[in-house]
Formats: sequence, structure tokens, C-alpha cells
Amino acid sequence: MTVSISETKTPSEPSYVFQASVSGLGAQVVGGKGIHIDVEKGGKMYKNIIDGVSGAAVGALGWKDDEVLEIINDAAKKSTYSYAPLMSNKGSEELSKFYIDNSPKGVFASALWLTSGSESNENALRIIRQYYLERGLPDKVKIISRDNSYHGFTMGAQSVSWNPRVDDYKPYLFDQVNVALKMPSAYTYRLKKDSETEEQYSQRLLDTLEKKIIDNGPETVAAVLVETLPGSSLGTTPPPKGYLKGIRHLCTKYDIIFYLDEVMCGTGRCNPNGKLNCWENFLDASEGPDIQTVGKTLGSGFVTIAGVLVGPKIKDVFVNGSNYIFGGNTYSSHEFNCYVALGVQKKIAREHLTANIFEMGNLLAEKLRKQLLTEENIAGDVRGVGGFQSVELVKNRDTKEAFDVKLGVSTRLKTLCFENGLSVMGMPANPDGTCGDRAIFAPAFIITEQDVDEMVKIFVKCVNSLSTALKQEGAW
Amino acid sequence: MTVSISETKTPSEPSYVFQASVSGLGAQVVGGKGIHIDVEKGGKMYKNIIDGVSGAAVGALGWKDDEVLEIINDAAKKSTYSYAPLMSNKGSEELSKFYIDNSPKGVFASALWLTSGSESNENALRIIRQYYLERGLPDKVKIISRDNSYHGFTMGAQSVSWNPRVDDYKPYLFDQVNVALKMPSAYTYRLKKDSETEEQYSQRLLDTLEKKIIDNGPETVAAVLVETLPGSSLGTTPPPKGYLKGIRHLCTKYDIIFYLDEVMCGTGRCNPNGKLNCWENFLDASEGPDIQTVGKTLGSGFVTIAGVLVGPKIKDVFVNGSNYIFGGNTYSSHEFNCYVALGVQKKIAREHLTANIFEMGNLLAEKLRKQLLTEENIAGDVRGVGGFQSVELVKNRDTKEAFDVKLGVSTRLKTLCFENGLSVMGMPANPDGTCGDRAIFAPAFIITEQDVDEMVKIFVKCVNSLSTALKQEGAW
Repeated sequence: MTVSISETKTPSEPSYVFQASVSGLGAQVVGGKGIHIDVEKGGKMYKNIIDGVSGAAVGALGWKDDEVLEIINDAAKKSTYSYAPLMSNKGSEELSKFYIDNSPKGVFASALWLTSGSESNENALRIIRQYYLERGLPDKVKIISRDNSYHGFTMGAQSVSWNPRVDDYKPYLFDQVNVALKMPSAYTYRLKKDSETEEQYSQRLLDTLEKKIIDNGPETVAAVLVETLPGSSLGTTPPPKGYLKGIRHLCTKYDIIFYLDEVMCGTGRCNPNGKLNCWENFLDASEGPDIQTVGKTLGSGFVTIAGVLVGPKIKDVFVNGSNYIFGGNTYSSHEFNCYVALGVQKKIAREHLTANIFEMGNLLAEKLRKQLLTEENIAGDVRGVGGFQSVELVKNRDTKEAFDVKLGVSTRLKTLCFENGLSVMGMPANPDGTCGDRAIFAPAFIITEQDVDEMVKIFVKCVNSLSTALKQEGAW
Repeated sequence: MTVSISETKTPSEPSYVFQASVSGLGAQVVGGKGIHIDVEKGGKMYKNIIDGVSGAAVGALGWKDDEVLEIINDAAKKSTYSYAPLMSNKGSEELSKFYIDNSPKGVFASALWLTSGSESNENALRIIRQYYLERGLPDKVKIISRDNSYHGFTMGAQSVSWNPRVDDYKPYLFDQVNVALKMPSAYTYRLKKDSETEEQYSQRLLDTLEKKIIDNGPETVAAVLVETLPGSSLGTTPPPKGYLKGIRHLCTKYDIIFYLDEVMCGTGRCNPNGKLNCWENFLDASEGPDIQTVGKTLGSGFVTIAGVLVGPKIKDVFVNGSNYIFGGNTYSSHEFNCYVALGVQKKIAREHLTANIFEMGNLLAEKLRKQLLTEENIAGDVRGVGGFQSVELVKNRDTKEAFDVKLGVSTRLKTLCFENGLSVMGMPANPDGTCGDRAIFAPAFIITEQDVDEMVKIFVKCVNSLSTALKQEGAW
């Protein structure tokens, strides 16, 4: 299928939605099928755009899947709303059991279903807090997370994140000095020294973490939180060898909760075993997290669902303690959402789509690497795992110098790709040069090798043409 | 219909959901139709329980509405996921326009759709912050909200709330001394002096608020936030005469955002004009809020949707400023959720159900008042507006002394009602006696006078029998 562009009648209607560009409509998705979307933008209709990022790393099955329509209908017929603190329901029980059974044995024991990744990280914080209160350890409150991290848009989730867009909201973040602590990113491309092996780099990061734990007092540290594979924050940079194992070890050593955020990278996007969790690339079952958040591909964009998975270590403390969680969100354990997610996940499992996206994603990276990094252009690094891949754009491939954020290089690349029929996510460089512009791929799990070739062809063409333009402008 | 209770085969299965009672299943909703639900609990099946609180003040249309199945099917067919910071969609635009058009003219100009009331209040905080940054007023950060208030379960929303269950989470709340300020509740039943008229009580509260604004410096105050009709926090206590008008006046006087939370009380539950907003009971169109959050009945429990409505004062500052909101939630403006909510709201409007629930809810209160307050029992106050009503339970009707929270009076009443075929929400007394136990009613908008009579009959019987039991125990 090739992209087609035509004029539309309504170039600039007013908008009533308080999002993105406030006054006007901006781009509007008007349809989709499989990995393609149709978009109205600036008085033009773009048909058959390849959705290289499946919305926002969401749509595992692509769009308008006929079987999903049946799943939705069936879920609507058999679901009844229930308010979680008063009543449970069978849909949330079944989805919990499915996720636990499709994860390495013994790692997870319970799950709570919410409506967004942000809410899931908020609830994980609540669970961690109650866990230590149940144990009579009220002073274990500090959360150690990373520079250049993203855990959500709500204030608690944002308090444990850091990126240049967080600063403006500081008045509404919790204590950034004594409670939300930050450790350095694990960013091999930019922060590993040439003189270090990957293992040595991991050890340096782990030494820094251990020093932070000791300096703060282990009796005050509640959890270490990392994205298994950072998404929008750093651009799918895989953890260096031994890094996650080392964090697991330190958490066990100092009685700290090992907390993984797999909202963007989990639930089948990057699993090497045809299953669900991204951490299975890096950790054995005996090293799994104590708590984990998930979302995105769980409902594949058809319903708004995300969740928290809890290991036996945490569950047992609750059961042997108050055995009760007071309160909850109105939409916790929403049965309709749970049944739709369960239907989607069963289809993904039955059609072996997790294995497909792992293979196709790695193929995409290999082809991008071969075609971009062997030629002269602004691509500095191609990295990722399975269905989650990024290209970092730099001014100088040797020194890794980032472009000035004011040049808007990622926005220009994103727009250029779109005009040529491919939607990718473009993330700007950090203003202080600590991270370059990035283009991020997170395609639907259903892509074929032909789709990969088409994406590579458009993307390489656009990188080269932007490189030429930047050269002509004297910016490169 | 009468409730039927029978034994089931599975008295105590394990549970995989991390909510409410952690180890076992607790109550499970297994079906529903109209205002009735079927619930499995403790090895028994309860059929045809009247859902007097529609889940959690959620289900405006009751359960398993056939037309809603069609609405869901249709929404699934025509919706495509879009990531709000990149692309909009027609569903979210149409729902925004519907809400704006069905509110008093000129009050709202734009809307943002999210997945829960908590997320909506989190986003309202973000919008308020960006509003003052756009105006070059970075020091306007303080949010004045109330004692005994509830604005959500996430950390930002909880930071501007206060109730006895918040304290445990203090390490993850934002600055409670310098940023999140609290003013007294507006709680006529308990806090108005006998020597005061309602208007004098309002004036006392407004004087306290004005002093707080002046003492803090108006140039540091961002917003005043109240629930138009407090829900679970205080039990539907209507604002005293002139109170909301007075807050509006002070906000205008000191250049402060007037921010209403109508997540629980809004969207048709308590509107006197057959429309949407609760504040129309107390304010003219010219006195409407600058920003408002909504949820619950918006999607009526079929989908997980909530939102933020923004007035022209705020929208204009954005449009004339950056005209851009960076970032967003993965599930902002979710088209499927928006289309389902729009279908639900159009049905409610077409069938005049807002007018029905306003009349039936007030009738429920009148009958409860007549049958409870004229006899000797533990009912101290019956209060509310339209479809949102509460009964406060007290040890002494004259002194308004609350029961000791350890007696669990509201839980006992809730359980007793359930065993007799009626589900109500029971909220415990505050441990410090500043608020008594409450039973809360928030039925579906479709109830008839016969349903009202049935609810009153069961509830009065249960209050009387609990009163007798407490007397026998020497607790009353």
C-alpha cells in the first residue's frame, strides 16, 4: 500500500479539545486498518500512513481488528461495573491469573488493574508505602529512580521521573531532596567510557547506587525504580550487561523493593520467549522484580487499561498483616476493560505475535543499522530490543555531540517521515546536550518483513534528505 | 423484584486481584440488569440486590442497557486510537462540544478527556500551573482546598484532599505547608452555630478564606478548589446559602482560579434544569467555575472516562500564549471512550433522565427524612441534592455526638442493608469525632417512585433494627 495525499474541504476548524495545539484542530486520525492510519492534517487527507509507533507503543494488533470487535461485544455483554473496595468481578480475576501464569513461575502473585500507566505507578507507590507500614517500618520511604526517566504524567509518577519537561511542575511534586532520589541513567551510548567494558560500566553505576543507599541509610530506602528498557525518556537504550542483575542483588542485600516500570516496553513488545515481560531478556525467574507496572499493549489501544503486578514477597506481608487495602479508584478492576485486554492477550498468544514482533523488531534495527551507520548522515546510534527501537541523531558521530534543541531536528524528521507515509515518534534533544534527538519505532506486533523493508526505505530516505538539508543550512 | 439468597458451590476461592481483601475473593458482582445486581459473597448468591449507589455513583443508566450495547459496538467500529500530543480525533471533539453546549453559555470553552477523576484533577493542576507560567506569574502556586475533602487516589489529587486515610501517604504528597493549603469544610449540620443563619455561617467561612488569601499573599495563590457537593468525604452536604457565590467573588477579586470538582456530583446527578452541572443549583452562568473536573456518570461505568472542562479565561491565555500543551497521557482523548460517553449522554438527555433523578432523589430524601427523623433511632441528618443523598448516623441527635469509629456503625448498616436486598455506600466516622458515620445513596437515573419506596422501606427497617441492636449492646 502506498500513501496518498489529497486536499480536504475543511482546512482549519476550531477545536474544543484542550490538548496539543489548543486553538485549532491539528492532525486528526480519521481511520485505520492494520498497521496503516488515515490522518487529516492542515487541509490535507493522508491515507495509508504506516503507523511505525502504533499510536504511542500501544496498538499490538494494529487497528480495526475484526476479531477485537467481537471481543469488545462479548465483553460488554458479560461485564457489570463493580466498585473495587466493595466488590470484585470475574474479569479482573481472569486477567490477573493470565498475566501471572504467562510470567516466569513464582514471580507474580497478584495484580491490580487500573486505567493508565501513570495511575499504575501511583498505585505502586501506595502499595510500597502500605507494605512498609504493615511491616512496622514507616521510615522506609525513599524511592531511588533515574535521571532522564519517565514514569507518568500525574504528580506522584512525575515526582519519581526526571526529564526537562518536569521542572515546571516542581511545586506539585513531592520532596525531591529527601524522598525522591535520583541516580544516573544507564545510557551506554553516551555515558559508558571508551576505556570501560559494558560490565565495568554497569559496576560503576551499581557502585554509585550502593553508595547512595548507604549514605542515605538503607533503613530509609523503600524502592529502586527503573524502566527495564527506557522508552520516550532516553530512546530504548538497553541496560548494560549485569546492570539489572546488580540492582536486584543490591535490593535483596539491603531489604529494598525492586520495582520495574514496563508500561511502555512490557506486555509482549520485547520478550524473547514469546511471553510478556521485557526483563526476561536480562534476568532469571529467581531475579524478577518485587513489583512491576504495565500498560500500553495490554489493551492495545482498544480500551484504557494498565496495571500493577505484585510478587509473593509483597502479597504475603499484606495477607499476614491487615489483609486489606482501604479505598481505591472508581475504575480499578474494571471488568469490561479486563475482558477486552484478556481477549487481546489471548489472541496475541494464540497467533505467536510476541515472537513475531521480537524477530521483526530486531530485523528492523539490523537493517537500519546497516543502511544508516555505514553512510555519512546524522544517525548516531540505532538501539533497542525486539519491537522497541530508536535512532539517535547527532551532529558529530565521533564526539556524539547533540544538535541544538532549538533546531528541532526530531520534529523535522518526524514531519518529513509523515509526509512520506511513515509515522514515528520524535523526541527532542535535552537542552543541556545530555541526550540527542531521537526517532522511536514501536510498530504493531503483526508487521511482516515487507512492512519492515517499507519502513526502513522511507526512514533512511528521510534521514538522508534531512542530513542534506541541515548541511545546506550550515547546521551539520 | 425481591432479593433471593442461595448457597453456592465455591465458598472461598483464592483471589489474584490486589484490591480490598487481598487473600480471598470477598464479594463478587456476577451480573446486573437495570437497578439490580447479582452478587456472590461468602458462599452465597444474592440475586436482585437494589444498587442504591449505582456502583460508586457511576451507573446513570443502570446495568446491561441494551441500547448501550449498540452504542459500544458502534463506537468500536468507528474509533481509532490516537496519541493526543500528536493527533486528535472526532470522538473527543464531539463529546467536548456536547458538554460545552449543554452547560450554561460561555462558561466552558474546551475539554480534555481522561480515564479517571484522579487523573482529571491531576491534569487540572497541570493546566493551572501552565496557565500562570503563560501569564509570567510563576509564584502563583498555592491551592486552597478543604478539610474533609476527596479529590482522588493519586498523589497530586490526594495532596489537595484531606481525610483520615490520607495521612499514611504523607511522604508522597506535595508540600502540605506552603503549597497545599486547607480551609474549613462547609458542613452546615455540624459546624454552623445555632446562633448563626446559613448566610452568616457562609460569611464566616468566606472571611476565613479571604484572610487565608491575604495572609499568604494573593500573588502566591493559584486556585480555590471545592467539591460543589462533597461526596464520600462528608456525605452530600450542600453548600450553605451564598457560600459558592462568595468563593467566586473572592477568586475574581484576587485573580485566583475558581476550581470545582464535580467528579461525583456532576454530569446530571444533581442538576435542577435537566442538564449537567451541579453548580447550577447555586450559581448563575456568570458565576461559573474557571475549571471543573467531571467523571463517574459521564461514561456510566461502561467505559473508564472522566475529564477537565476549561473556561474561556484559561483557554484564551493559552491561545494567546504558547497555544500548546506539551505531553499528555497515553489515553487522553480516547476516541472509543468518548464515543461511548457521548452515546450515553445523548440517551440520558433524550429520555430526560437528569430531570427524573433530580425529582426521584429529592423524593427519596423527603421520604427518608419523614420516616427516620420523626422516630427515635440513630439517624441524625438526611441531606443532599437530587440524586445524591446521605444519612448521617449519630449517637445523640441533640448533641450530634458521633459513634466511636471502632463500633463500625456504617459498615454494619451497609452489611445489614445488603442482606436485606439494598446496596448503599457506608463511610466510617472520623476517628476524632468531627464527622459521623454515613450511608450514601446515588442511584441510577432511571429509578421510579416504586424503586424509591422499596429503597426507603429496606433502609428504614435496617436503621431501626441496627438502632435496637446498638441499644441492646449499650452503645446507644
